[in-house]
Amino acid sequence: MSRVPRIVILGAGYGGVVTSLRLQKLLNYNEADVTLVNKHDYHYITTHLHMPAAGTDKPDNARVNISSLIDEFKVDFVKSTVVQIRPGEKKVILEDGTLSYDYLVIGLGGEPETFGIPGLKEYAMTIRSINSVRHIREHIEYQFARFKQEPDRKELLTFVVGGAGFSGIEFVGELADRIPELCKEFDVDPALVHIYNIEAAPTALPGFDPELVEYAMRLLTDKGVTFKIATAIKECTPEGVLIAGDEFIKAGTVIWTGGIRGNHLLEDAGFETMRGRIKVDEFLRAPGYDNIFVTGDCSLVMNPEGRPYPPTAQIATQQGENCAFNLVASIRGNALKEFAFVNRGTVASLGKGEAIGIVGTKKMKGGTAALMKKVIDMRYLYTIGGLPLVVRKGKLR
Amino acid sequence: MSRVPRIVILGAGYGGVVTSLRLQKLLNYNEADVTLVNKHDYHYITTHLHMPAAGTDKPDNARVNISSLIDEFKVDFVKSTVVQIRPGEKKVILEDGTLSYDYLVIGLGGEPETFGIPGLKEYAMTIRSINSVRHIREHIEYQFARFKQEPDRKELLTFVVGGAGFSGIEFVGELADRIPELCKEFDVDPALVHIYNIEAAPTALPGFDPELVEYAMRLLTDKGVTFKIATAIKECTPEGVLIAGDEFIKAGTVIWTGGIRGNHLLEDAGFETMRGRIKVDEFLRAPGYDNIFVTGDCSLVMNPEGRPYPPTAQIATQQGENCAFNLVASIRGNALKEFAFVNRGTVASLGKGEAIGIVGTKKMKGGTAALMKKVIDMRYLYTIGGLPLVVRKGKLR
Repeated sequence: MSRVPRIVILGAGYGGVVTSLRLQKLLNYNEADVTLVNKHDYHYITTHLHMPAAGTDKPDNARVNISSLIDEFKVDFVKSTVVQIRPGEKKVILEDGTLSYDYLVIGLGGEPETFGIPGLKEYAMTIRSINSVRHIREHIEYQFARFKQEPDRKELLTFVVGGAGFSGIEFVGELADRIPELCKEFDVDPALVHIYNIEAAPTALPGFDPELVEYAMRLLTDKGVTFKIATAIKECTPEGVLIAGDEFIKAGTVIWTGGIRGNHLLEDAGFETMRGRIKVDEFLRAPGYDNIFVTGDCSLVMNPEGRPYPPTAQIATQQGENCAFNLVASIRGNALKEFAFVNRGTVASLGKGEAIGIVGTKKMKGGTAALMKKVIDMRYLYTIGGLPLVVRKGKLR
Repeated sequence: MSRVPRIVILGAGYGGVVTSLRLQKLLNYNEADVTLVNKHDYHYITTHLHMPAAGTDKPDNARVNISSLIDEFKVDFVKSTVVQIRPGEKKVILEDGTLSYDYLVIGLGGEPETFGIPGLKEYAMTIRSINSVRHIREHIEYQFARFKQEPDRKELLTFVVGGAGFSGIEFVGELADRIPELCKEFDVDPALVHIYNIEAAPTALPGFDPELVEYAMRLLTDKGVTFKIATAIKECTPEGVLIAGDEFIKAGTVIWTGGIRGNHLLEDAGFETMRGRIKVDEFLRAPGYDNIFVTGDCSLVMNPEGRPYPPTAQIATQQGENCAFNLVASIRGNALKEFAFVNRGTVASLGKGEAIGIVGTKKMKGGTAALMKKVIDMRYLYTIGGLPLVVRKGKLR
C-alpha cells in the first residue's frame, strides 16, 4: 500500500473533536489523511445546553466553530450529514457524496430514548443540539406571550420536564431561575406558573448520593419545582401528559430528558447494538472490525462490575484520546492501549450559584460545587481550544 | 347639587391621558372628582408599537406607567376592564364594579377592522397593544426556531403583512431590518425569508404624496419586501392567505394592519355609530348627550370637506386637550370651544434611519424625515411626561 491510510471521523461531538485534535498532534507529516465529517460547522458543548434551552445563557456560548478548533492543514473538514455507513465496503454515504476510509471513527452521538411511550417522540421537545435548544427557548417565551393574549389558557404556563436524571435536574434548575425573569418581562403573576419534574425511577438522580439528591430536591422545590418521583409518564399528547394514576397534566410545554440511545445509523449498518449502542472491545473497536472505533453515545463500555458506564462528556472525551492513540498504533503496527475510564468526578448544576457533586469520595454542594462545575467546563474548553477559547467562552455563568 | 361633579375617563390612550393631564392643570381644588379607568396600569405609545412588534426595540420603550404620568392627588386611577356603558343611567359597568359619573370621556380605542374577510379575525395577528406586540415578536422568533427543526417547512419563513397603510408600511420597514439579525441568530439563509405586503387599494399609503410613496416602495423593495398592491386578501387560514387571482401564499405568520373600527362597547351601549365610531358634535360630544365626550379611535370627526379625518395619535392628542377644556367649561357653565384639527405634519418611518413625511407643504424623505419622526415622538413624550420622560424613553431609536 503506497498511499497513506485514510481516517474518517464521523461527528464533531466530544469524542470526534478530541480524536481529531489528538491525531493532529500524534501523526507525523503525511502519515495519514484525516477527514472530520459533521452536520454543522460548529461543535457544541452538550453539558452546557440546559442553559440556552432555558434562556439563561446565549446559544452561542454553547458552541465553537470547528474551523477555530482544528488545524485545516492537518485535518480536512466536511460539513455534511451521514446517511449510511457501509462497513463491508469501507464507505460512508453522505447526503451529498461518498467517503472511503481505511479507518473509521463513529462519534455520531445519540438520539432520545422514549421507551415506546406514545406521543413523546411527536409532542415532547428534547435538549440535544443548538437548533433544539433555540427551539425550546423560543417555545417557552412564546407560551408567555400567548398566555397574555389568551389568559384563560392557564396550561400555557405549565412546563413538564420528563426525567429527573442529570439533564432533567440541570434543566429545571435553569428554568426555575428563568421563570421570574419571564414573568417580569411579560407581566405574568409568578403564582400562575408551574414546573413539574416527573421521574419513573424511585428517586431523582438515580445512583447518586442520597444526601445530595435530597439537598437538590429541597433546593429546587423551594425554587418552585413540583417533583413527581416514582411516577411514569404513560402518554404525551399535544395537550400535556398522562401520568401513572391516570392523572392528566395539561401543559403547553413538555421537555423529555429521560434517556439517550445510540444513533439509528448503527443498527442500519448491521452492527449488533444494545439500546442502539455498539458494545465495543477493550480498544474501543466495533466487534469484528479492526478498523472501526466508536466513541461517546454510540459506544457501550462496561465498568469492572460488568454494568454499562452512563454516557457522559467525560467518558467521551477520554475515549477520544484513547481512540486517537489506538488509530496511530494501528497504522504503525504498534500495540493498542486498553481503554480505562478514570472518574474525575461528577457535578450537576442546580441553577445560578448552586450545584451538587462528588469528586473522588468528597461530596460537595452549594457554591463550592457550582465553582467545581465551572472548573470542569473550563478544563474542557482548555482541552479543545487552549487558553484563547477559555477566555472567549469561559464566562459560562 | 352640593357634591362635586364626577368625571370618569375611560381608557388611558392618547385621548384619555391627555384629557386627564389637562384636567389636572385646569381644575381648581375640589372642583371635580376625576377617575381614569384603564385595563392596564400603563399607557402605551401606539405609534411606536411597530418596533417592538418586529423586535427592533423593547416593548418597555413603548409604554409608560400611568402612576408616573398622573398626579394621584388629583386623578384617581382604577385598573379595570370596562364591560358596559349605560348612558341612560350615567353608569359604567366594570368587570369588578360599577362607576357613576356626571361627565364621561370615552377613549377606549379601536378594534381591528377586518371588513368581513373570512379567517382574518381568527388567524391573523394585529399590532394593537403591548401584549399583542410581544406576541407578534415571539411568534416571529419562534418561526425561525421551528424552521431549524423542520427545514422542509419553508412557509415558516414567509411573513405576510396585510395592509400597506401607515401601520403596515412602518411595520414592514422594521421587519425588513430585523430579518438579517434573526437570520444570523438562528443560522438561516436570508434568501429563504419572504416578506409580502398586500394592499387592496390601488396604491400603498393611499392619499399620501405619490412621489414619497414611490420612494418608500422602492426603498422597502430593496430591503427585500415584495409588494402586492391592488390585491385583496380573500381569505386567511392557519396555512396562509388566499389573494385575488386565487393565488395562495403559504405563510407561518400573517399580520393584519388593514383597518381600525371603534370599540364594540359603543354599539352595545346604543350609540349610533359609523364603523363602530361615534360621529361627535363640534364640541366632541356624543349626539344627544351633553355630558359624554368621545376621543380618539372611538370618535369620528369630519374635515371641512365633509370626509372623516383618519384616526391618528395626533388628532387624539388634540382632542384630549379640547375635551378637557370643554369639561371644565361645562362644569363652570362657560361656553364650549369647537374642536378644530391642526395638521402638524405626518411622517412614516421605513426602518432604521429612513422615513417619508409631509410637514405643511414640505416633503421630506431619508434621514431628514427620520429625524422629524424622532422629534414628533419626543414632543409627545414631553407633552405627557415632561423632560424626565423624554430622557427616560426618548431614545426611541
